[in-house]
Amino acid sequence: MAPVVNERVIVASYSGPQEYPTPGKTTVYDTTETIDPETTPLNGGFLLKTLELSIDPYLRNRLRKESTAPFTIGAPLASHGVGIVLRSENPEVEVGDHLYGLLEHKSYIVRKELGGWKKLRNVDKLPWSVFIGVLGMPGQTAYFGWKEHAHAKKANSRSTFIMTTADRHPMDRVKLSLSRQVLVLLVIQLAKLDGLKVIASAGSDEKVEWMKEIGADVAFNYKTTKTADVLKKEGPIDIFWDNVGGEALEDAIDAANNYARFLECGMISAYNSGYSFRIRNFFHIITKSLVFYGFQAGRLEAKWDDEFRKVVPPLVASGEIKYKEHIYHGLESDGQALLDVQTGNNKAKAVVHVAGN
Amino acid sequence: MAPVVNERVIVASYSGPQEYPTPGKTTVYDTTETIDPETTPLNGGFLLKTLELSIDPYLRNRLRKESTAPFTIGAPLASHGVGIVLRSENPEVEVGDHLYGLLEHKSYIVRKELGGWKKLRNVDKLPWSVFIGVLGMPGQTAYFGWKEHAHAKKANSRSTFIMTTADRHPMDRVKLSLSRQVLVLLVIQLAKLDGLKVIASAGSDEKVEWMKEIGADVAFNYKTTKTADVLKKEGPIDIFWDNVGGEALEDAIDAANNYARFLECGMISAYNSGYSFRIRNFFHIITKSLVFYGFQAGRLEAKWDDEFRKVVPPLVASGEIKYKEHIYHGLESDGQALLDVQTGNNKAKAVVHVAGN
Repeated sequence: MAPVVNERVIVASYSGPQEYPTPGKTTVYDTTETIDPETTPLNGGFLLKTLELSIDPYLRNRLRKESTAPFTIGAPLASHGVGIVLRSENPEVEVGDHLYGLLEHKSYIVRKELGGWKKLRNVDKLPWSVFIGVLGMPGQTAYFGWKEHAHAKKANSRSTFIMTTADRHPMDRVKLSLSRQVLVLLVIQLAKLDGLKVIASAGSDEKVEWMKEIGADVAFNYKTTKTADVLKKEGPIDIFWDNVGGEALEDAIDAANNYARFLECGMISAYNSGYSFRIRNFFHIITKSLVFYGFQAGRLEAKWDDEFRKVVPPLVASGEIKYKEHIYHGLESDGQALLDVQTGNNKAKAVVHVAGN
Repeated sequence: MAPVVNERVIVASYSGPQEYPTPGKTTVYDTTETIDPETTPLNGGFLLKTLELSIDPYLRNRLRKESTAPFTIGAPLASHGVGIVLRSENPEVEVGDHLYGLLEHKSYIVRKELGGWKKLRNVDKLPWSVFIGVLGMPGQTAYFGWKEHAHAKKANSRSTFIMTTADRHPMDRVKLSLSRQVLVLLVIQLAKLDGLKVIASAGSDEKVEWMKEIGADVAFNYKTTKTADVLKKEGPIDIFWDNVGGEALEDAIDAANNYARFLECGMISAYNSGYSFRIRNFFHIITKSLVFYGFQAGRLEAKWDDEFRKVVPPLVASGEIKYKEHIYHGLESDGQALLDVQTGNNKAKAVVHVAGN
């Protein structure tokens, strides 16, 4: 095989505080590198062909000089993705293995060790993009948190449930991560599988519609309808999945039954104020015997990941658990995808499909 | 037996917002009522002789016109206490039973039904005053909360623990309830019985001394020493028993290990601001996977009270669990006791010893 172009998406410059990352300026699609996949030296490592890349709003932060972990100018972007092993001299890695990890945005990657990358099993023959969405970190966060802390069976017949999404990104008032939306949609479905009444909110009518489609009993746009009013009518609630903090949290505390569980997964509303915010009615944690659980997927992985890998993929395969993706085709569309997740022009979780498996 | 005086402590007038309840003015020791314990008609009820009465700062609130549940002018005060049954026509109640409940402040009480009153068992022959202190609501709150939520065995060898007491009463900046002190002292001892290192704070050197005497590894006066500094040196902490909220809570969040438990028993500091307060670092509930448990003794009683009644009295009898009381002798001292708990002149949990058993 003759050398082929190793397509890359390079960080060309940092973007300013009020500036969106511009394709062609902040990031550049580059075709100057070539590689011969059959002969390129591996030096005891392995060769990965990139299949799917996750595009998330947080990447914008790494495209800033002021970031705590800025990308290197002249080097490729990197984000979570899935690739397939084409050749290997590493005994841990076999040809045909599908690996998940933080991938550079390029067609072919040579790497020595597995490092933090994981081998994926896909007995249900799902599209590989699923492994950066509903079967990736967002899905894991939803599943682990729900299973560990919701205590859904404790909830009685009046049981209701609220989650609120914000659509403002902490860094700069852009749209909330749509990977967070993947999470929220899965939590709604897990709650429905557990037989609960689900009240859900979002910041656009389109998202509200999708929430209803996948099974939320009550869904509303919190920009046009007051959360407190909805909860007064549809509550009280036994479980609150919190991505937001702030006023939504206060509304949930007001609407909570005794012993309600608060699953603290995010506090978007607090990011801009340095995480500090006033909770008007926090004292009710005592009067109502509430429990607040803070959690992160990584710390629950050892306990729940095996079950997650067993339970969720067949439900996704059968369509019992639905998900939504906005697929961009080819690394050439990478910069546009990155811009779209900042401006909210993507319609669902953004995925760059680099190559077939 | 001839009629005897049925001593009473009567509410004579309400006290003003900035006024302490004054013996002889707010409350009056009254000897005008007589009773013949042998012949007074029971009408199917029973006759109780009052033994011990609890004097708590919260009573002051009920001595105000503006209270949500003001005492009736001309009627006796009432608070938790213990009495012995002298005669009974009620098949549920036997002569010699010791009863615990909200008692009127008088020597003899005739009552029809048990109502909310409870029969006490005292196989360890403890002083009856103990049943309104370490074996009463403060002790129950400490024990139930600790057993249900501390997960002391989860705590590793570095395990440390902090509780903070305030000495300002919510209503009017007087000393914090010393029944809260009973609770705190028991929690310290429960933590020591579970093998933990205990860091404790109080608002006076005298209380700090007592905390050390009963086993706190580190005790300090938070008015003269910064809580954050102590926790930096003696922490990190796995369990925080919170009676205070506010800054102490923030300090505890900063000093918390991952997975630390926050036992939310009170938020004294928040009372004056209508329970609303800013939590500078609440976001760390997520980054550190903290759990906040709100609780009240009443809701945990069904689960833990039997064990509490089995475990704690023998430990109190053997001296393994210590407690402290300030005993006032006779109903005549009732008004002074009430004043002392407001001004802080009592040295420990205030008890009015009305009669021997």
